[in-house]
Parts: sequence; structure tokens; C-alpha cells
Amino acid sequence: MSAVSGEQTDAQSAISKSSTAFKTVVTPFPGSRKIYVQGQLHDIQVPMRQISLTSTPTNEGLTENAPITVYDTSGPYTDPEVEVDLCQGLSRMREPWIVARGDTEVLPQLSSNYAQQRAADMTTKNLRFDHIAPSRRARSGTNVTQMHYARKGMITPEMEFIAIRENARLQEAREQGVRARRHAGQSFSAAIPEIITPEFVRDEVARGRAVIPANINHPELEPMIIGRNFLVKINGNLGNSAITSSIEEEVEKMTWSIRWGADTVMDLSTGKHIHETREWIIRNSPVPIGTVPIYQALEKVDGKAEELTWEIFKDTLIEQAEQGVDYFTIHAGVLLRYVPMTANRVTGIVSRGGSIMAKWCLSHHKENFLYTHFPEICEIMKAYDISFSLGDGLRPGSIADANDEAQFAELETLGELTKVAWEHDVQTIIEGPGHVPMHMIKENMTKQLRDCHEAPFYTLGPLTTDIAPGYDHITSAIGAAQIAWYGTAMLCYVTPKEHLGLPNKEDVREGIIAYKIAAHAADLAKGHPASQIRDNALSKARFEFRWDDQFNLGLDPEKAREYHDETLPKQAHKVAHFCSMCGPNFCSMKITQDVRDYAAKLKIGNIDVAVESGMAEKAKQFKQQGAEIYKDA
Amino acid sequence: MSAVSGEQTDAQSAISKSSTAFKTVVTPFPGSRKIYVQGQLHDIQVPMRQISLTSTPTNEGLTENAPITVYDTSGPYTDPEVEVDLCQGLSRMREPWIVARGDTEVLPQLSSNYAQQRAADMTTKNLRFDHIAPSRRARSGTNVTQMHYARKGMITPEMEFIAIRENARLQEAREQGVRARRHAGQSFSAAIPEIITPEFVRDEVARGRAVIPANINHPELEPMIIGRNFLVKINGNLGNSAITSSIEEEVEKMTWSIRWGADTVMDLSTGKHIHETREWIIRNSPVPIGTVPIYQALEKVDGKAEELTWEIFKDTLIEQAEQGVDYFTIHAGVLLRYVPMTANRVTGIVSRGGSIMAKWCLSHHKENFLYTHFPEICEIMKAYDISFSLGDGLRPGSIADANDEAQFAELETLGELTKVAWEHDVQTIIEGPGHVPMHMIKENMTKQLRDCHEAPFYTLGPLTTDIAPGYDHITSAIGAAQIAWYGTAMLCYVTPKEHLGLPNKEDVREGIIAYKIAAHAADLAKGHPASQIRDNALSKARFEFRWDDQFNLGLDPEKAREYHDETLPKQAHKVAHFCSMCGPNFCSMKITQDVRDYAAKLKIGNIDVAVESGMAEKAKQFKQQGAEIYKDA
Repeated sequence: MSAVSGEQTDAQSAISKSSTAFKTVVTPFPGSRKIYVQGQLHDIQVPMRQISLTSTPTNEGLTENAPITVYDTSGPYTDPEVEVDLCQGLSRMREPWIVARGDTEVLPQLSSNYAQQRAADMTTKNLRFDHIAPSRRARSGTNVTQMHYARKGMITPEMEFIAIRENARLQEAREQGVRARRHAGQSFSAAIPEIITPEFVRDEVARGRAVIPANINHPELEPMIIGRNFLVKINGNLGNSAITSSIEEEVEKMTWSIRWGADTVMDLSTGKHIHETREWIIRNSPVPIGTVPIYQALEKVDGKAEELTWEIFKDTLIEQAEQGVDYFTIHAGVLLRYVPMTANRVTGIVSRGGSIMAKWCLSHHKENFLYTHFPEICEIMKAYDISFSLGDGLRPGSIADANDEAQFAELETLGELTKVAWEHDVQTIIEGPGHVPMHMIKENMTKQLRDCHEAPFYTLGPLTTDIAPGYDHITSAIGAAQIAWYGTAMLCYVTPKEHLGLPNKEDVREGIIAYKIAAHAADLAKGHPASQIRDNALSKARFEFRWDDQFNLGLDPEKAREYHDETLPKQAHKVAHFCSMCGPNFCSMKITQDVRDYAAKLKIGNIDVAVESGMAEKAKQFKQQGAEIYKDA
Repeated sequence: MSAVSGEQTDAQSAISKSSTAFKTVVTPFPGSRKIYVQGQLHDIQVPMRQISLTSTPTNEGLTENAPITVYDTSGPYTDPEVEVDLCQGLSRMREPWIVARGDTEVLPQLSSNYAQQRAADMTTKNLRFDHIAPSRRARSGTNVTQMHYARKGMITPEMEFIAIRENARLQEAREQGVRARRHAGQSFSAAIPEIITPEFVRDEVARGRAVIPANINHPELEPMIIGRNFLVKINGNLGNSAITSSIEEEVEKMTWSIRWGADTVMDLSTGKHIHETREWIIRNSPVPIGTVPIYQALEKVDGKAEELTWEIFKDTLIEQAEQGVDYFTIHAGVLLRYVPMTANRVTGIVSRGGSIMAKWCLSHHKENFLYTHFPEICEIMKAYDISFSLGDGLRPGSIADANDEAQFAELETLGELTKVAWEHDVQTIIEGPGHVPMHMIKENMTKQLRDCHEAPFYTLGPLTTDIAPGYDHITSAIGAAQIAWYGTAMLCYVTPKEHLGLPNKEDVREGIIAYKIAAHAADLAKGHPASQIRDNALSKARFEFRWDDQFNLGLDPEKAREYHDETLPKQAHKVAHFCSMCGPNFCSMKITQDVRDYAAKLKIGNIDVAVESGMAEKAKQFKQQGAEIYKDA
């Protein structure tokens, strides 16, 4: 077996800002600019992406279309005013906020034995990120979680940041005090959406219905929230394995993922140099980073699950905590007595973490040490503000195994652990399946809300059929959209390579976009304030043949433009009043426009009047004037 | 504007069986063979695809896995015993069935004036399909629809064919009298599925809850059924436009579409040589072909909607009827009084047929001639057995316009027309939207079932958001899966090029597979008999690292294999007990297998016993034996 990782030479020279890949991610989206909204409670600037639109030509001249502002996960990379140097990491925006709270201390050295060893290891010096600032930890006796602050009634800068950010789509309405209008003058029928307030953010975090994954050692973070009363979020996974990929590739996948819309990124590396890879990712990531610490712990015992110990695991938690990981997947619900429930399944235990813990439990014939040491884990979590993502180690790996005894038994235990975590003011989300046919999805959500006390649900898909390897971003987007509509707060993406191999960059893009679609479809279905503004703007652009606006308002402007240009490459075709699907005579949108113009011209606001009074004369005029529906551009 | 169609030279030389494209579509799927099941009421052979599986290695030796038979839309192309010559067309399987019914007559010449002109036109001789058999029509006073036969109590060969075909997945169970088993010896918990009977098919057709689109002039057809008590079907669109594409390309798209699973194909051509293109497609198509006759009628009046007449339209219907089109989209529900209801929409009228008729209505200030002549259309339909697909000309073209007054007003009219069609024993399906957010989808289905008297619903998606041009196969697969679960019988596919351009072959494949996923996800959710057999077989193969079986059982074996090989190209890796996602130490499926083997070895069918009695000794044994979870392949 070849280990590509062994061929790594020098991370700093490899991760170069002159690379084509890097140039791609620092290019702003077309028609877009970065804007920053100033906080009111705190001195904070919240980044958003504003998409400029062209004007609509009407008979009375040009009518302006207000720009559309959208939630932006891409971080400083897409701000041309900011020069990002991957070797230096992003700016440490949150550091003054954290320092100002006065409840943390700078550590004289890393607390983890393993981290100390790595720092002293000369053979990996060339892979090391050079600019690690000293790590922080809660002062003895303090609790530095956002939940703790929220319960004390504090509105942190993180909370205000999030409130402003969640309202991104209302930016124009707020600035201008008006709503978007159609050129015909009618206002949209949608009610004026509510504004999410910092107090609402605080309240949702306090009651555990939302989490803000924000390790005090990840000051580069642009805070975000996961909860079902906010925009649905998505997670993109990356990670090398023993077989493929390098540090450079993983950092590139992270920047690439957030460009397309990943709200958080999980680093699932299992190969060599996990520690070094993670450092590079966190220092350059504006989004929360999640990990599954048991993967690295297992590496430390050469892949032998039965040799895992609480001490090794604990050291791994601290190692990662002090690097700045924002949330940990912990498979503490895989109890010894649940393992046999999986024996009759078609696909047994498919979660890596779950199978590792199952193996450990059976080998030692003891209860899962993550469960027995759970309160100690909480102590670590609250000293850095790491959020739990309680792992579903017994999730179904096939339609046949959906919603079975093992899955639901574990879910109940996760609910019990949620209460324990909350006693420590530790933020908690719950992971969910997996493979579930559509008619069994709702039961998952209902049970999770009840058994886990409304802690946010974070599901992988679910995949709604097993028969489409190569297309599981689609089999799972179908399930993801549904479960998010029912209340799931964050969706873990699935790429086309699921079950088959490691995703490359294009797979990551496909997976992210599929999940942005699922998340947004759910936001629409939930009636989230303002979620339809972007749809309306895009549809209006489409209807008015403002091709560039249509592309720019889409989730993937590049692909939309590329597809359009495949058939009609010329610039003239981007202003032509027809598209290749229909040809010049057949443009239904053009005809509708004629119908509308006709109604306007006759000044019969309600065409019914014309119809009912049988205005044959006007029909005749229309026939004379409107016969030519296409004028060559 | 360049018209590629003008460059067409000689269809027969272009459509060559030596082309690479043709070689691709006549290659059977890997691991698959064509089987034919003999009818019992009629002398018919129903084609299916049987996928062979490899054996499962167990401690007791190899355990066989029964083959899996699947519904097959690919026609004779994938049968190596059949030599298809596109210039001759497919064999006319249904001809003896039609002749035997004795209610049709061979026409001395084509009835349509236009068709006669085309036949006499020497400039297009080189584009003509040469082997057109004389067309048929119902004898005067007879009605040749499957609905008519069904209501008279006849079980036609078409109906028996369909019953056998719908049961394809039960083939092994029927042959062997056994159910699939796991190698561990436990049988699946699913109940033995019911068999669909020919009588059930007849009954569903008689009551209008299902249709069999089967023009008597399309004897090459392998009959299929559209109804919500059968497998969910999908339609793939093709068609040239004035701007792009040739006859050869369109025939190729048809064979390509059915290879990937299109149950019907709509020819939406709007460019030159519509008549000739259609002939080539029908003569070579084993699936029903649908059209929107108003498109061609509009071509005949040079794209001027207001110049359309009933006579031109009627001649077009007859022209297409005698070529063998199996279903017609007719926009008879776009009533004059509904047109103004669209004036305040964000995207007006987006259906091409709808906007043509709206323009006609406004120009003439008269009621839609498709509505006023509807009984005459029925007379034509029943003389050839063409099914209505009542078009939704006022469907919403954006989220903002979903479920509005115009859309639902038209739907009610379609329900009224359904009753008229049924009075003539003409089979009828109803077209539906379009763009609908998830929470508004169910209302569409509920209303359609009620207002259209359970006539089958046939929807385009719906797209659940407008913001993802370039990915509308995904935005719409989400909606399609849901509405099919609720009861939609057939889904019209959407490709990634929707709104942007004409799909190429890869786009067609992406669209078809996305819709096969949606349809199958719905079959699972509806609990259709046996729909889970393929999922279970694939998941079992996946769990047992039978990589080739996993690929071959998938909807797109080629892509699955290709994706796998990108990361792990060697043949050895297809038998290796790990995949690239996890690497050798991390394979959760392998660990689960260890857990199961352990349980079996200890002869504790219920591991709980071991757990409860605290068998520390056995845990120790396991630790000694099971430590090495990976043995290099």
C-alpha cells in the first residue's frame, strides 16, 4: 500500500498563494462584493456578500433592481481588500472578545503530552504551521461556553454577530426601508420578515435549542449558529486517509468548501500527520471545525481498537481542544448492551466511531468509556467551549436497518447525555442518520426532538435509497431537504463519491451545492424570514432575460454561465430574449411579457374587464402590434 | 443566428450502427443478461434484466446470492441476441395483437395533408425513414383504446405484459419459491410482496386510475403503465430546436435515455424536420413517445400564435397519430378568463404551450380552441388509442407563483375535461408543476386527486427552490420524490441544463438517474411490493465488500465503478476488505463483521446472554483472536 502522505515534503512551500487553486478561492463571485455590517452592542463587523443587479428595461426607461445580500461563508478569502497568507493564518478577530471576558488564561505550554511530542519532533518540522499563538484555557473554576454566558443573560459579540448575519437577506430592506418591487409596480405579497435579534440568539442558546460552536482557541472564526429557528446549515467533510491526499489538498478542500457554502467543516483525517493537518486547517478557517477525536486516538494505538484507553482519548481531546477544534463528535451512546442489537442488521454498524467503540466494548466486556467518563469530557469541553456533537454510532447503513431498535436505543441515550452536558452548560447537538426511506424520516425528527429535549439535530442525509452509488449526493439531498424542513438544524453533506472513494474538489463542490439546495429548500418550506427574497430576485431576472443576474444570483454562478455558454456562447445571447431550449419563436416568457405589456398598454389593470366587455377592437390592435414576438438581438 | 439543422445531410448514413454512440447503447449492463418471461393468457415474452451476483465467502464456504431481476426500459438494444438496425426500426411485436383485435384498418394513404406533403417532398427525401409500414386507424364506429377494452372486461396482451413487467423484481422469488436470505441465515423481515395481476391492471385502466400509452401505430412498443398503484415512472425529454441538434442526435438521446431508465420519452422538437425526426424516433423506440402537437402546429404558421387554427392543429394531430405518437400534451385548460390571473405573477406563463394558447386567446378574444374542440380531439384520440396528457399551461414558473389562482383554476378545468375524455373511453393523465416549495407540494396532489377524479398525475419536478440554475435536476428531484410518494404516477425529468440550454448526452444521463432515484425513493416510501429487494441486495453486497455486485446493482454501474477506480484503481482493491474512505484500520463494516462472527463463533445467537452473564473469558478470547482486523489482500 502506498502512503502518499510519506511523499509530503514542505507544507509551507506547497501551500502557496500563487497556486491556481488559491487564486480561484480568493476570486470574489461575479457581480458580488463584500460588505460589512457594524454591530450596535459590540464593535463588530459582520461580513456579507452583496450581489449587484442590472436594471430592468421598461417602456418608461430603466427600472433599478436593488442588490441582494446573502449569507456568506467564504470568509476573508473573497474580500479583495484582505490579503490572505495561508502560512500566517487568518486574522484573529475574536481574540479581543475572548480576552475582554477575562475568564481565560494563556497557557505556558500545550497541556497535551502528544501535542508536546509533536512540537518537539524534528522530522515533521517541515510540515508544521509556524505561527501558532499560545493556547488558552478557562481559568480554574470558570466556564467559558456561550451557553454559560447565555444562561447568565450575557449577549456576547458572537451572539450579536450571528443575529446580524442571520438577517443578511434583509439587508437591503433594512437599509432602504423598502421592500423589493416588481417593475410593474406591485409589491410582493410576502409579509415583511421578522428580524432575528441578539436577544433571541441568546435565548435559543440558553435553552439549548441552538449552539454556537466557537472554541476559544479558534479566534479566526466568524461565529455562526446551529438551531432549527435559524437558517439551516450544512457541513462539508474533508480529511486525508492512510491512502491518499496531503495537507495542501486538505486546506484547499476547506477553502473550496466554504467558497461554495459549507457552514462548518469536519476534518475526518485518519492518515499520517493528522495533528499538523488540523493546525493548518484551523488557522485558515473562518468556519467552525469539527473532528471525531476517536479517529486520531485510534491512530495512536496503531489502529487497534481494543488498545484504546481513556487516558489516550483524554489527551487527544485536550490536544485538539488547544488547537481550536470547535466541536467534537463523541460516540458516547454506543452502549455495550446495544451492540448485539445490530447483529441481525443487513449492514451492521457502519459508523466508524461506532464500530470502534463496539469493538472496544466487546473486547473488554466493559461499558463504553466515553459514556462512563462523560462528566470528565464535559469538564474539558467547558474549559475551551467545545460543543458536543453526540455521534450516532449505531445509525442505519441501509434502508433495511432504518429506525431499528439499536438506532433508537442509542438516540435515547444521547438524550440522557444531553441533559448531563447541559448541567455543565456545554453546548450539544445530536447526530442522526444515515439511510432512511422517506416515510420513516419524520419519526426520526419527532423522536429526536422529544428524547433529546430539542437539542439541535445534525443528520447525514439521510439517503432515501441504497441503489444509486455514484449519486448519493442526490439520494441524500432528497432526505436532507425533508428532515431539515421537519426541524433538523444542520445537514452533513454527502458527495457523489460516498461509499466509493474520497471526494476530489469537484465532488466537494457537487456535494456542497446539493446540500445548499436541500438547506434552502427547507428554509423556504419552514417559512424562514426572508428566505424567498433570493428566489424571487432570481426568478424575476430569469423572466426578464437578465442572464448575468440570473447566473450571479445562483448558488453556482460559474456553472450556470458555463452551461448557458455551451449552447449559446456569444455575449449577444446573454441579452437575447430567447434561450436555446425554445428558440426565437417559442419563448414563453417573452409571450407572457407581451401579454402583460398588452394589459398595461390598454390600462386595464384587471384584464378581466377587457375580457368581459368583449373588446374585439383591442384584440385586433393587439394582433396588429404584437404579431412579432421576437426581434433579433 | 445559425441553424445547425440546415447542415443535416443524410439521416440514414448518419444513423449508423457502427458509431461509437450506438455501440454504447447496445452494450448490455455489466453482470446483466436479458431474460424473457412467458405470458400465460397470451403468447407474449416480457423482457427483464437479470443481474448476476457473486457468492458470499463465509466460514462454511461460499454461500450463493440469488440474482436480482429488475424492470428494464432499455428495449432490444441491450439484448445481444437481437441485432438492431436503426434504419429498419425495431421489430413490430404488437402488430399481431392489434391485428387480432380486428377493430382497425390499414389506411391506403396517410390522412394528414401535411404528412402527404412531406412524403412527396423531394428535398427532404434524404432525411426520411424508409421503412414506414402503412398506418392504421380504428374502423368506423369502433374505439380501440385500452380503456375501452378494459371497460368491456378484456385483458389485452398489453395488460398481461404490464402485469408481468411490474412484477419483475419478484422474478427470483417466483421461480425459486424462496425469499432472499442473508448468509447468516436469517430471512428478511419484509412480508412476501403481492403480485400484480393482469386483472388488477385491467381494473385500474377501466377506472381511469392508470393509463397504457400505446398508439396502434407504435407496434414497436413494449407496453408500460402509468398509475399510482404501480411503479413510479419517469419521462425524459428530447428534441431539437431551431438552434441546435440533428436527427441523429435526437435518436441517440432516445436510446441513451431508455438505457438509463426513461419509461417514456417526449419529443419536444421545435426546429426543422420535426416530422422526419419523430418518425425515426418512434420506429426505434420501445417506450411510449409523447409530443406537444401545438409546437409543430406553430411551426406550420411560422411561429405566429395568432395564426393558429383548429384545422391546422387537427391535421397535426392526425399526422402525429398516424406516425404512432402514444400521448399528446394538450393545453386545453388555458381558458381565456384564466389568462389575466397570471398578470401579477413574478414569472407569468412559463409553459410554452400555455403561452401560445394564451396569446391565441388574447389575439382573437375567443375561448381556447383546444377547449372548444375537445370532443373532436377525443374522437381522434380514440381512433388510434392516444392518451391525453392534459397540459398545465398555467403552471408556476417560480416559487413565488406556486399554487396560485391561475394554476388551480386550470387544474379544475383539467378535471372537467378528464370526465369528457373518459366518456369517450380516452385514457388521460394530468400534467402538474413546476416550481413549488416543499410545504406546498402536498396540496397539489390532494387537489389533483380530488378535482381530476384520480386520473394519474404527471409532474415536472417540482423544483423546490429557484436559486440553483445548473443543478435543477437536484432542486427538482427533491420535489419529485415527495410528490411521487404522495401519489404522482409519472415524473418528468429535469436536467442540469434546465433554464440554461439544451441538454447534451451527459446531462440526459444525470437527469434520468436523478429521476430514477426520486421514483425509486417514492416506491420505497409507498411500500410498493418488492421495491426494497434491490436496495437490500446492494446493501448486502456493500457490507460484504462484493464491490462488483455493488456496482452492478446500482442505477449507474459505470459511474460507480469509475468513481471507485479513481481512488483505488487496482483489481485487487475490488476484492479488498477496505475502501479508500477509511483505510485499512478503519473499516467499520469489517469491524461489524468481526462482531457478528464473534457472536456466531460463541454460538450465542443472542449476544445479550453473553453480555448479561459477563463472560469475561470470552471477551479475552476475542481480544486474542480478533486483534488483527485487517489482513492485507
